[in-house]
Amino acid sequence: MTVSVGLIGFGYWGPNLARAIAATRAGDLAALADADPARLERAATRYPSARVFSDPKLLLDQAEVDAVVIATPADTHFDLARRALNAGKHVLVEKPMARTVGQAEELARIAEENGLVLMPAHVFLYNAAVRKVRDYIESGELGDIYYIYSQRLNLGQVRRDVNALWNFAPHDLSILAYWLGMTPERLIASGFSYVQNKIEDVVFVTLAYPGGIGAHIHISWLDPQKVRLMTVVGSEKMIVYDDTSADERIRLIDKGITRKLILEREQPSSALGDYETFGQFQLLLRAGDVLIPKIEFDEPLQLEVEDFLAALRDGRQPLSDTQSGIEVVRVLEAAQRSLDLGGPVTV
Amino acid sequence: MTVSVGLIGFGYWGPNLARAIAATRAGDLAALADADPARLERAATRYPSARVFSDPKLLLDQAEVDAVVIATPADTHFDLARRALNAGKHVLVEKPMARTVGQAEELARIAEENGLVLMPAHVFLYNAAVRKVRDYIESGELGDIYYIYSQRLNLGQVRRDVNALWNFAPHDLSILAYWLGMTPERLIASGFSYVQNKIEDVVFVTLAYPGGIGAHIHISWLDPQKVRLMTVVGSEKMIVYDDTSADERIRLIDKGITRKLILEREQPSSALGDYETFGQFQLLLRAGDVLIPKIEFDEPLQLEVEDFLAALRDGRQPLSDTQSGIEVVRVLEAAQRSLDLGGPVTV
Amino acid sequence: MTVSVGLIGFGYWGPNLARAIAATRAGDLAALADADPARLERAATRYPSARVFSDPKLLLDQAEVDAVVIATPADTHFDLARRALNAGKHVLVEKPMARTVGQAEELARIAEENGLVLMPAHVFLYNAAVRKVRDYIESGELGDIYYIYSQRLNLGQVRRDVNALWNFAPHDLSILAYWLGMTPERLIASGFSYVQNKIEDVVFVTLAYPGGIGAHIHISWLDPQKVRLMTVVGSEKMIVYDDTSADERIRLIDKGITRKLILEREQPSSALGDYETFGQFQLLLRAGDVLIPKIEFDEPLQLEVEDFLAALRDGRQPLSDTQSGIEVVRVLEAAQRSLDLGGPVTV
Amino acid sequence: MTVSVGLIGFGYWGPNLARAIAATRAGDLAALADADPARLERAATRYPSARVFSDPKLLLDQAEVDAVVIATPADTHFDLARRALNAGKHVLVEKPMARTVGQAEELARIAEENGLVLMPAHVFLYNAAVRKVRDYIESGELGDIYYIYSQRLNLGQVRRDVNALWNFAPHDLSILAYWLGMTPERLIASGFSYVQNKIEDVVFVTLAYPGGIGAHIHISWLDPQKVRLMTVVGSEKMIVYDDTSADERIRLIDKGITRKLILEREQPSSALGDYETFGQFQLLLRAGDVLIPKIEFDEPLQLEVEDFLAALRDGRQPLSDTQSGIEVVRVLEAAQRSLDLGGPVTV
Repeated sequence: MTVSVGLIGFGYWGPNLARAIAATRAGDLAALADADPARLERAATRYPSARVFSDPKLLLDQAEVDAVVIATPADTHFDLARRALNAGKHVLVEKPMARTVGQAEELARIAEENGLVLMPAHVFLYNAAVRKVRDYIESGELGDIYYIYSQRLNLGQVRRDVNALWNFAPHDLSILAYWLGMTPERLIASGFSYVQNKIEDVVFVTLAYPGGIGAHIHISWLDPQKVRLMTVVGSEKMIVYDDTSADERIRLIDKGITRKLILEREQPSSALGDYETFGQFQLLLRAGDVLIPKIEFDEPLQLEVEDFLAALRDGRQPLSDTQSGIEVVRVLEAAQRSLDLGGPVTV
Repeated sequence: MTVSVGLIGFGYWGPNLARAIAATRAGDLAALADADPARLERAATRYPSARVFSDPKLLLDQAEVDAVVIATPADTHFDLARRALNAGKHVLVEKPMARTVGQAEELARIAEENGLVLMPAHVFLYNAAVRKVRDYIESGELGDIYYIYSQRLNLGQVRRDVNALWNFAPHDLSILAYWLGMTPERLIASGFSYVQNKIEDVVFVTLAYPGGIGAHIHISWLDPQKVRLMTVVGSEKMIVYDDTSADERIRLIDKGITRKLILEREQPSSALGDYETFGQFQLLLRAGDVLIPKIEFDEPLQLEVEDFLAALRDGRQPLSDTQSGIEVVRVLEAAQRSLDLGGPVTV
Repeated sequence: MTVSVGLIGFGYWGPNLARAIAATRAGDLAALADADPARLERAATRYPSARVFSDPKLLLDQAEVDAVVIATPADTHFDLARRALNAGKHVLVEKPMARTVGQAEELARIAEENGLVLMPAHVFLYNAAVRKVRDYIESGELGDIYYIYSQRLNLGQVRRDVNALWNFAPHDLSILAYWLGMTPERLIASGFSYVQNKIEDVVFVTLAYPGGIGAHIHISWLDPQKVRLMTVVGSEKMIVYDDTSADERIRLIDKGITRKLILEREQPSSALGDYETFGQFQLLLRAGDVLIPKIEFDEPLQLEVEDFLAALRDGRQPLSDTQSGIEVVRVLEAAQRSLDLGGPVTV
Repeated sequence: MTVSVGLIGFGYWGPNLARAIAATRAGDLAALADADPARLERAATRYPSARVFSDPKLLLDQAEVDAVVIATPADTHFDLARRALNAGKHVLVEKPMARTVGQAEELARIAEENGLVLMPAHVFLYNAAVRKVRDYIESGELGDIYYIYSQRLNLGQVRRDVNALWNFAPHDLSILAYWLGMTPERLIASGFSYVQNKIEDVVFVTLAYPGGIGAHIHISWLDPQKVRLMTVVGSEKMIVYDDTSADERIRLIDKGITRKLILEREQPSSALGDYETFGQFQLLLRAGDVLIPKIEFDEPLQLEVEDFLAALRDGRQPLSDTQSGIEVVRVLEAAQRSLDLGGPVTV
C-alpha cells in the first residue's frame, strides 16, 4: 500500500519535506498547499503529478489524502493539525507541535480517539549520531550523567513568527528527552532581543532534571559561527557531539574526576594542586583515550518521513511520538514563562 | 630603585608569581611565606636569596619589604591584604580581592588613606588579545555591542575553598568590565554540584548591562575540553577570541544582519527565507571577510607584575585598578546570591 | 537559442554533468549514451525527455545534437572527441582530454578547422577560490611567487583505467597553469603501487617552471584523510587554499623573510637564531595579519557547463580553453615518462 | 656517580641542552664552551657553577669532564666529536653526526676502540608519540606498511650553514629508521632555493625501502604554517601523527581498501564507482573507528639526556645509537647527491 500524502507549506522547510516524501516508496506526494502563489507555482513545477491548493482546507477535503505533513509558521500548527485530524488524516507536524500544552494535549486526544498517528517532526531523533549518544548513555559507559549542555548558534535564519527559543530549542529539548528519558522539573530562561523588538535572538535556558541532572541550552541566530554542539558530562566518560562535523560527529572521551578516600596525608597529584589533600578524600584526575566511532549516517529527514509512513501503516507510534511532542511544548511553554517573568519556574 | 617584594603563598599559583617577580628588574623577591613546610622548603631551594617565613605575619613585619603579593586561598585574601596595607605595604592580591564588597571597599579605603597601591591580579587585562578586542570595541568597528558570551571550561583544577564561580569568573568579569566600561545591573546565576557537596562545578550567569547589552558566562571545571572562548556580537562585526590558540587568538568577522525598510513586497533573500518580507522591513544577512590580526604577545603575568611595580613607583593606579577589584567582587557577590536564591538579583 | 546537448557516459561523473546540463537555460539535455544497460536505464528514468543510446556512435549521428559532453573512461576520450568533432559537434571532454600530446593536438586541429569549440573540463578554473588566488597572484600582493605545493588525497575513488596521476593531477596542473600562466620546463615524478599491480596509488611530482618557480604535487587515493590543499609561497605573502573548507577556503597570510643588508654585527632576532649575523645580510622574519576573504561560491560544474555553452554560442574560447587541455596532457605525459624512467625529464 | 658533563655551543639549541643537563640528577653541567663572548657570558651568568671556555679545545683538556655534548654548527660536528672521543670523553652530538658516512664511521670506530658512548641527538626517538606509533607498527595493527609521508614545515629558522635538508631531515630519517627498522635502498630528492643562493629552503625526498615500502619527506623553512605531520598508510589501518597537537598527537584510523575476489558481476559499492566490477576482484572501502590514544608525554630532550648518561654509566648503547647516526648521515649524503645530480641515486 502506498500512502497518499499531502504537504501544507512550501516555504523554507517544506521543499525539503516534499523531496523526502517524493523519494520514499512508502508514500506518494499527492497534494500540495501554500497560500503564496509564487511558492505554489514553484511546488507545482517541481511536482507536476501533485494536485496544488492555495487553501490548505481544500487539501484537507481531498478524500484520497491519507496523511498530511504540516510545514507552516508555528502559530498555525495547532489549527491545521486539528483540522487534519478531524478530517481523518494522519499528521506529521513540524515542531513545535503547538504553542501550549493544552493545544498539544487536545491534538493527542483527537488523534487517539480516531486511531490516527500524530507525530511531531523531531528530526534529530533520526540522526544516527544522536542515537549513538543514547546508546552510550544507556549502556552505562558514561557512568552517572552529570549534565548536558548544548549550543545551537547561527547567523541567517531570523524568524519573525517565533523567537529563537521556539525556533531552535525544540531540537535540543527533544534530544534531551530522548537521551535522558525524562522531563525537567524546573528551569530558568533568559534572553535578549536585538534585531527585532521583543523577539529574542539569543536565549539561555538552565534545566534541572530529576536526580540532580542538569542541562543548559544556548540558542542564538545572531552568531558569527554555525555551532551545533552538545556535550554530555558523565561520572566516568564524556561525549562531545558536533553535528557540523562531516565524519567526526561524536567523540567519546575517557576523562573524569574520581574521589578517593585517604587515610593520611599523601602527596597531591600535581595537576589538581595542593588543596585536595586537606580533606578526607582526594580528587584524582583521570584521562584516557578518545574514541571517534564510525557512524553510518543516513539522512535524518528521510528516516523521519519513513518512520511516519511505517507507523501509520503498522498502527504504532513513531520513534518521535505524540507524547514527546507534548513534553517539548511543555518545556517550551515553561521557558517562555520564565523569559517573561525573568525568574525560575517549575515545568 | 628596586622594590623589595614579599610573596605570601607558594601553592598552585604562587610559584608563577615568584618566577615573574624574580624575572623583573624593577623588583626583588626578598621574602616568601607559606604555612606548609614542604612548600616553604621548595620555595627556599628555588630562591636561596629570599628570606622565608612559615607565618605570613612575620613576613609583614619585615621593614625592608615594600610590597606584598598575596597568592593564598580566597578566604584569606581580605585579612592578609588588610594586614599588609596596615603594615604600610603595597599589595597585589590574587582574585577575588575579597569575599564581600564591604571587605573590598575597606581595603580600598585603607590603601587610599595610606597612599598605597592596592591591585587585584586581573591578569587578563595584560593579555594582548584582550586589549586588542577592546581596541576594536572602542574604535566602533563592531558597531553597537549586542552581547558577549564566554566559556571557561576545563578538567583538573577542582578547588575546595571556593566554587567554580569564584575560581574562574573573576577572569570573565574583569574582562567584561574592561571591554564594556560598566558594571551589570542585573544578573541571574544557576549552577550544579557533582564532585563535591555544595561546591558548584558548573555555573551559568546571564548578565544585563546598561543600554540593553547582555552577557553570559559558562564556567566549569568538569569538562572534556579546555575552552577559553569569548564571543562579542556587535551590530556591524563580531569577534571570536580563543585564548587557547597559539597564533590565531582573535577573529574579526564582518557579519551581521541589517534591517532595511521596504515599501513594497520584494523578493526575499534566499538565506533568510520568506518570512522577512511580510513586515515593513527586511532583514538582510551580511557576510564579508574574516581578519586574524597579528598580536604581539608578551606573558600577561609578567606584564601584571611590571605594572604593579611601576604603579607603586610612579604613585599611580595600575591598569588593573582597585575599583575594578571592587566591581568584580560586587558581581561575584551578586552571582552567589542568585545561586543561593535560585533567582534573579540586582547587582 | 537553446543548444541541444548529448552526454556520453553515465558512470561516476556523468550524472553530475547531466544535472548541470539539465539545470541550465542555455542548453537542453537532448541525448544520452552509455554502453552499460543498467546505467542507461537509470539515465532514461531520470531524464525521460532525452533520447538514449547504448552506442555513442548513434548519438553522434543525431543531426539535432549541437554539442557533446564526454564523460567516459580516459582511454576513450580521444576517439570519442575526434568522432564528435568530425561529426560537427562542439565538444566538452572530461580530463584528461587525451592520453598523448599528439592526440590532443590532433583534436585541437580538427576543432579549429571546423570552427568548433573543444573544451577540456578543467572544472577548478570555475572554482571561485581558485580564481581569487589568481587575482591575488596577478595583483602582485604575494610579491614574487616562489613555489606552490598541492595535496590531493583521499580514500575511496580507486580507478582501474588510469593511475592516481592521470586521475587527480589534471586538477592540480590546470590550476597551476591558470595561476602561473606557464608550462613547467622540467619535472621529476615518483610513485608507488599498492592496491593494484602497476597502477600507482600515490604519486609525487616536482615541477620546475621558468624563472625558478617550483611546484610539488602529492596525489593519493590511499589516504586516511580527504585533503584538497594548495599553498602558494610568495616573497611578500603566502596563501593557503583548502578546498574542503565550507567558508574559509582561502587564507592570505602576511608572512615572509626579508633580507636586510647589515654593515656591522647586530643583535640577532631571537626567532632566527644567531647564525644570521655572520654574513653580510640579515634574514628578518615578518609576520602580520591573516585575511580570510569572503568568497561568493557558485557551483563550479554549473559554471563550467554555462561557459561551454556561452563559448559555442559566442564563437569564442571558454576559460578552460583548448590550449590548456593540450598543456595539461603535455605535463601528464612527461610525468608518466618520468614515473616509467625513474628520473627527471624535460616537459 | 654523577657524570661531569661539558657542553660545547651555546647558540640556538645549546641553552636547551644546558637546561636538560642541569635538571638531571645523573649529570652535572661542569663546563661550557662557546667562541662567541656574548653567548659565553650568558652561559656563565645562567650557570655560575660551570667553568666556561671560549675555546672548546680547552674544555676537552679538562680531565674531570667525563662526557661532552656538542651543539655547534653542523660542519664542526665531526672534528669536535673526534677530538672529544680522542680525549676519552663520551659524546652526545647534535644531528647530523657528521657530513659524510666516512666521517661518521670513523667516529664510530674511535668510540668503539675506546669503549666510549657516541650518541647522535635523535631527539624524536624520545618522543612518546613516536614510540607509540612504533608500537602500533610492530604489533601488526596497521597490517603491511605501504608508505609513510612527512611534512616538516615552518617559517623562521633559516640556517646558513646547512640547507633545509640537513637541518630538518635528520628528524624524519631517524624516525623512519626507528619505525621501519631499515635503511632505504634508493631515493630521489629535489629542492628549491629562494632566500639564499644555493641553500635549499624547500626539499622533497622520495625514498624506496626494501619490500616496496615507500616514504616521502617534504621539508621547508619557508612556509606559512608550522607543520609537523607524519602519516603512516598500512594495509589494515592508518596513523596520522601531528606533533604540533597538544593532546591529540596520534590518530589511529581504521580505514583501508580490501581486495575481494568476485566470481560474477555484482552490484558495485557506490563510493568506489562502477569501474571496479569489471575485473576479477572488487575493491572494497573499509572505514571504522578512529582512536586517539592517551599518551603520557615527557619532555623528549630530557629523556635524551637521561638516556645518554644512563648508557655511559651502564656501558650500553643508547636508544639513539651510533649506528642510527651513521644511517641517517648515509641517507642525507645520498639525498644531497640526488639534489646535486638532479636524479635518482642508490643509498
